[in-house]
Amino acid sequence: MKEKLTVVKVGGAVVEDEQQLAQMLERFCSIEGPKVLVHGGGRRATKVAAELGIETKMVDGRRITDGPMLEVVTMVYGGLVNKHVVAALQALGVDAIGLCGADGDIIRSVKRPPVAVKSTPKTALELCSLATSGTQEHQSPQFIDYGFVGDVKKADGAKIARFIEAGLIPVIAPLTHDGEGNILNTNADTMASETAKALASLYDVTLIFSFEKPGVLSDPDNDLSVIPVITRKSFEQYKADGTISGGMLPKIENALSAVEAGVRQVIITQASAIGSQGGTMIRGDER
Amino acid sequence: MKEKLTVVKVGGAVVEDEQQLAQMLERFCSIEGPKVLVHGGGRRATKVAAELGIETKMVDGRRITDGPMLEVVTMVYGGLVNKHVVAALQALGVDAIGLCGADGDIIRSVKRPPVAVKSTPKTALELCSLATSGTQEHQSPQFIDYGFVGDVKKADGAKIARFIEAGLIPVIAPLTHDGEGNILNTNADTMASETAKALASLYDVTLIFSFEKPGVLSDPDNDLSVIPVITRKSFEQYKADGTISGGMLPKIENALSAVEAGVRQVIITQASAIGSQGGTMIRGDER
Repeated sequence: MKEKLTVVKVGGAVVEDEQQLAQMLERFCSIEGPKVLVHGGGRRATKVAAELGIETKMVDGRRITDGPMLEVVTMVYGGLVNKHVVAALQALGVDAIGLCGADGDIIRSVKRPPVAVKSTPKTALELCSLATSGTQEHQSPQFIDYGFVGDVKKADGAKIARFIEAGLIPVIAPLTHDGEGNILNTNADTMASETAKALASLYDVTLIFSFEKPGVLSDPDNDLSVIPVITRKSFEQYKADGTISGGMLPKIENALSAVEAGVRQVIITQASAIGSQGGTMIRGDER
Repeated sequence: MKEKLTVVKVGGAVVEDEQQLAQMLERFCSIEGPKVLVHGGGRRATKVAAELGIETKMVDGRRITDGPMLEVVTMVYGGLVNKHVVAALQALGVDAIGLCGADGDIIRSVKRPPVAVKSTPKTALELCSLATSGTQEHQSPQFIDYGFVGDVKKADGAKIARFIEAGLIPVIAPLTHDGEGNILNTNADTMASETAKALASLYDVTLIFSFEKPGVLSDPDNDLSVIPVITRKSFEQYKADGTISGGMLPKIENALSAVEAGVRQVIITQASAIGSQGGTMIRGDER
C-alpha cells in the first residue's frame, strides 16, 4: 500500500496576503503525511512589472512572457514569493525547500510555439504589437506568441521524491527549464497537476486546488450549492445541461486528467478549508 | 580519508555577465568531485533597485537593507541570479539545485543589531537619513542600523551534505533566515566561508574565492606579483611591513579563520582561473 501524499496548489491572491498566507500555511501544516505546495504569484508579478514600467499582457488568462517579463516572473515567483513561503514554513517547524523546475531537474518543459487563438477584435487590437501571422480576414486565426512560456515535457516523480524521502517539504514555484539553460514561465495549476501525476506511481496522491469559492457550484450565486462529487460521467452531464460552464470547464478537465493518470482524487476548495472536509471531489467513475 | 570537496564563491560581476558566467561555469564544472557554488549579485540588485526607485546605501562596502531593499535582494539573489545559474548548470549536465539559507534550513542567522562604525564626515552625511545615536562629537562612534542583514548563527554541514550525497550541486544565494519567518541579506563571502567551515568535518574542503585580480599581490600595480602562499605567520609579517593593506586585510582574515576552523586551504584567484593552478593559497602554518 502506497503512502498518502498531498499536493496543494495555492494562487497568488493567497500567498501575497499576509493574513491569508498565515491561515493557509496553518491548514497546510495540519495535513498529515508528506506534502508538496505549489504556488502562484501572478498579481505580485504584475505589480512589480508595473513598477518597472513593463506592461502586462494577458491572452485567455495567460501571461505573455517576453524577455523583461521573464526576468520579472523569475524574480517574483522564484525569489520573492518562494523564499517568503519557505521561511514562513520553517518558522512553523516544517523543513520546507523552495524549488523551481530547474532545481534538481525536477520539471522540464518546451517553449510553447505560437498558437492559434480565437480572438475578439478587442483582443486582436491589444495584441497588435505581438507577432501575428495570416491575414486580417475574419475567418483567419490569430497566432499568439506567448514568449518564454513552457509546456511541461516531463515532471520527474523520482527526482521530486528524493526530497520528500529526505523529510523535506517541496515548495514549488511556477517556473520550469528547457534543459538548454532557459527558465520558462509555466502555469501553476499545470505545475500542480503534473507534479501530482508524476508522484502517483510512488504515492497515493490527493491533489487540492485551492480557489476563491468553497467548491464547484451548481448555482454560481449560491456558495451553499457546492457539488460534492464530480466524475467524468457526471461532468459530461453537467456540461451538457449547462450547470458547469466557462472557466470552470478547463479546471475540471485538468482535474479529471490527473485522476485518469493515477491521482486518487482532486479536491477543489477554498484555501481556508485546505485539509478539512468539504469542497468538490473529482474522482474516477469506478470506485 | 575524507572525500575532497570544493566551495567556490563568485561575485556579482561574474554571474551578471553572460560571457564571464559561461567561462566561470565551464571552469567550475572542470573541478573534480563534489562542489558547491556560492554567488553574489549586488550589482544587479543595485540596478533593479534603481529601476524601482529605491536608493542603494552602502557603508564600508555593505548594503543597508531596509524593507524594500530586502524584497529586491530576495528577488534578485534568490530568483533572478540563482535560477539563471542553476538552469545554465543543468544545460551543462550538472544536477544543480538553487538554495538559500532557508531552504532545508541550511543556514540560520540573527539580524545584526545596530553597530558602531568609524565613519568619515562624508559617510555620515550619506547616512543622515539613517538611525544614528550618540552625539556629533568627533570621538563618538556612529551607530549604523544595517536593517535586514543576517549574521550567520549556524551553517548546518549535515543538512548541506544531504544534497551533495544525493548527487546534487548546491548553488547558494546570499540570503539566510532567522527561523522566525524572516529572510535576511547575508554577505556572499561569509556564506562561502561558513559553508566551507560547516562541511570541513565531513569533507576535505578547499574554498576558492574568485576575485578580479589573479591573487593577492605584493605590488598592487603588478599582476605578476602574486604571493603564492600566505600563512598566519607570513600574514602578520606582510601586515607589519605594509605589503598587504586595506580591503585585502579582512578578506585574508576571513580565509585564515576558515583554515583555522578545519578548511584545508583557501585559494584567492581570478574567476577565469578557477580549478587551475595559480592564485594565492592561504593555509595553516604547520604542514
